[in-house]
Amino acid sequence: MSCIGAATAAGAVGLYLGLQMGKREPIGLTKPADLVLGSEVDLLKAPVVIPNTDYENDPKPSYYTDTKASMHERMESFVLDLQNRLVTALESLEPSKKFYRDRWEREDGKGYGISCVMQDGQVFEKAGVNVSVIEGTLTPGQLKSMRDRNPQTAKKLDADEAYDFRVAGVSVVVHPRNPYAPTAHKNYRRFEVYKRNDKDAGPVMAWFGGGADLTPAYLFEDDVKYFHQTLKHACDAHDPTYYPRFKAWCDTYFRNIHRGETRGVGGIFFDDLEDKSPEELFRFAYDSGNSFIRAYVPIVAKRMTMPYTLRERNWQLIRRGHYAEFNLVYDRGTKFGLMTPGARIESILMSLPLTARWEYMNKPNAASPEEKLLEIVRTTKEWAE
Amino acid sequence: MSCIGAATAAGAVGLYLGLQMGKREPIGLTKPADLVLGSEVDLLKAPVVIPNTDYENDPKPSYYTDTKASMHERMESFVLDLQNRLVTALESLEPSKKFYRDRWEREDGKGYGISCVMQDGQVFEKAGVNVSVIEGTLTPGQLKSMRDRNPQTAKKLDADEAYDFRVAGVSVVVHPRNPYAPTAHKNYRRFEVYKRNDKDAGPVMAWFGGGADLTPAYLFEDDVKYFHQTLKHACDAHDPTYYPRFKAWCDTYFRNIHRGETRGVGGIFFDDLEDKSPEELFRFAYDSGNSFIRAYVPIVAKRMTMPYTLRERNWQLIRRGHYAEFNLVYDRGTKFGLMTPGARIESILMSLPLTARWEYMNKPNAASPEEKLLEIVRTTKEWAE
Repeated sequence: MSCIGAATAAGAVGLYLGLQMGKREPIGLTKPADLVLGSEVDLLKAPVVIPNTDYENDPKPSYYTDTKASMHERMESFVLDLQNRLVTALESLEPSKKFYRDRWEREDGKGYGISCVMQDGQVFEKAGVNVSVIEGTLTPGQLKSMRDRNPQTAKKLDADEAYDFRVAGVSVVVHPRNPYAPTAHKNYRRFEVYKRNDKDAGPVMAWFGGGADLTPAYLFEDDVKYFHQTLKHACDAHDPTYYPRFKAWCDTYFRNIHRGETRGVGGIFFDDLEDKSPEELFRFAYDSGNSFIRAYVPIVAKRMTMPYTLRERNWQLIRRGHYAEFNLVYDRGTKFGLMTPGARIESILMSLPLTARWEYMNKPNAASPEEKLLEIVRTTKEWAE
Repeated sequence: MSCIGAATAAGAVGLYLGLQMGKREPIGLTKPADLVLGSEVDLLKAPVVIPNTDYENDPKPSYYTDTKASMHERMESFVLDLQNRLVTALESLEPSKKFYRDRWEREDGKGYGISCVMQDGQVFEKAGVNVSVIEGTLTPGQLKSMRDRNPQTAKKLDADEAYDFRVAGVSVVVHPRNPYAPTAHKNYRRFEVYKRNDKDAGPVMAWFGGGADLTPAYLFEDDVKYFHQTLKHACDAHDPTYYPRFKAWCDTYFRNIHRGETRGVGGIFFDDLEDKSPEELFRFAYDSGNSFIRAYVPIVAKRMTMPYTLRERNWQLIRRGHYAEFNLVYDRGTKFGLMTPGARIESILMSLPLTARWEYMNKPNAASPEEKLLEIVRTTKEWAE
């Protein structure tokens, strides 16, 4: 566990947490007669200590340096560890319940997953942290799509060869109840491709993919800067080109094209990452995955006790409708999952909000906080320094 | 307007309306302590007369026999008339508000639409009745998709020729508030294709497409039989092969493939219909479109006053989540619309429910009314006689 004091060592965090522990901003409470929803406002207290926010100073786990194990095994240990760390950090904010943990095995024995889900909590309306460790055979369609997507892959994987794969990954989506606390998503996975039935020879190629992004219903610029700055800090420790490239990639990927909006205020997104040694990439995945806890959980702690009314709740549900649209219409992982026979639909659709709302022609008033959010998602902006 | 007595002339309707006016079935109210939601239960009264349910005996409108007008103009008059008739029939059940009517024009002048929407009513949580009358130029992609879909079209439309099109259509989605009152959808349109800039020569080809389907959260077999029987009655008057073909087509089309479920309990669905003279097909469209009012609105009248609790409301919202999944992941019209630059997104997504819910691993108890619904949507069944 790391205390807030230790976390402040990381640049902008100090300034940010100063805000967190200090004043509250009752934005949106314009009419005194508005009904304040959420009895949690009086019951909840942000903890002084949020666990697992200081990955740089915490002791490193054994898999971090265990070079005798294969990279796939180390990745498996990492995603399981990160799942636990994230679940612990989120549970530290939630007074009403714990995550429900659910292990499943593929019927063909070629993999397993652990889904941790919290639903209808006081702080978290729905949160899912999902690990999957899967192996299988690349279908011709999957091979073609990998080769088409990336010229490097096309050089290393022969169109006529037969391949197997292994993948270990963790994905997270958190939908807090308080409309001022943003939704967030992250996802890290490592993919290995082998010649068919020749795992001992080692992978023909391997890559990392992943990302993290923030989706507020109301804009707090300090939160967004802090989120981006914290992700950038983890990227910069490995490659100064990573954050600018991955930030732009995120803005392009998480878009509701039909609405001319980004899903939220972005973050980072990357795929096919194999530009450094496996060891170096693993350390980047470790830092980047862990930095999400530091980037996101303190924002929830800061916002979860803010009073709100039906107006903000309604707007949050409308934004969640747009979130569901992105996941069902565009998200590659979701679409791939839905089209895969025998896939575990409940884990794939865990990312959808508990509740969503679609109003015809909903239009916020000019200069309202809701309109301010729309202005931000209709464009993209640099948030980190 | 037609009174209930007149509507009973049509076969199964009499038996059905006997039920409607008589006993209530408080299914789901298993615990006396359950909170009964919906103050509307005491306030609402199903009307004795539902307008526009007797298209066979009502006087025919002038466009029905106006053979001097073009078929496109008659279709335009028909969809506008049907929109009004449907809006009037639905408003007869709703005590709290009227439809909001919204006319829009395409910026290039090539068409217009009228959207009628009711939101947050006491009976109708969300209902949209949308007309659009559009002309344009067939893109090579659209032409290819039409030719690929249908060998008849491939014979009549040359792959290298340039074509214009006109389409007039009406679409309806109704989401009642009461969980015992089913959601329903219908959609009728007539499509004409011309040689480029040669409208005077008449269409090279023209076809009807459309359908109607019912999506209950709770199964009342009498309602489903009545709905199917009423649609079948309209089909049978024109071709005895229509209902069985279109019923099977509907079961195939409205499927959440990833869940192994049909969207609801089906109805009819057809496209590329050009197997009879334009006059005969127009009369079928008239009967079929109008029969939807008779098939659906009395079911809402029968169910809208039933007491329900949070349990049924929750289940309804979960089923609406599945409804949103179908529309966003599979529905051709929605997908085509979302991918069309400049399309009117608010009209395309009018079909989405006002509220929806996604719970992780929601599983109804064995032998519960919720499980009974799941059993029905996991298979298909013959409902009409």
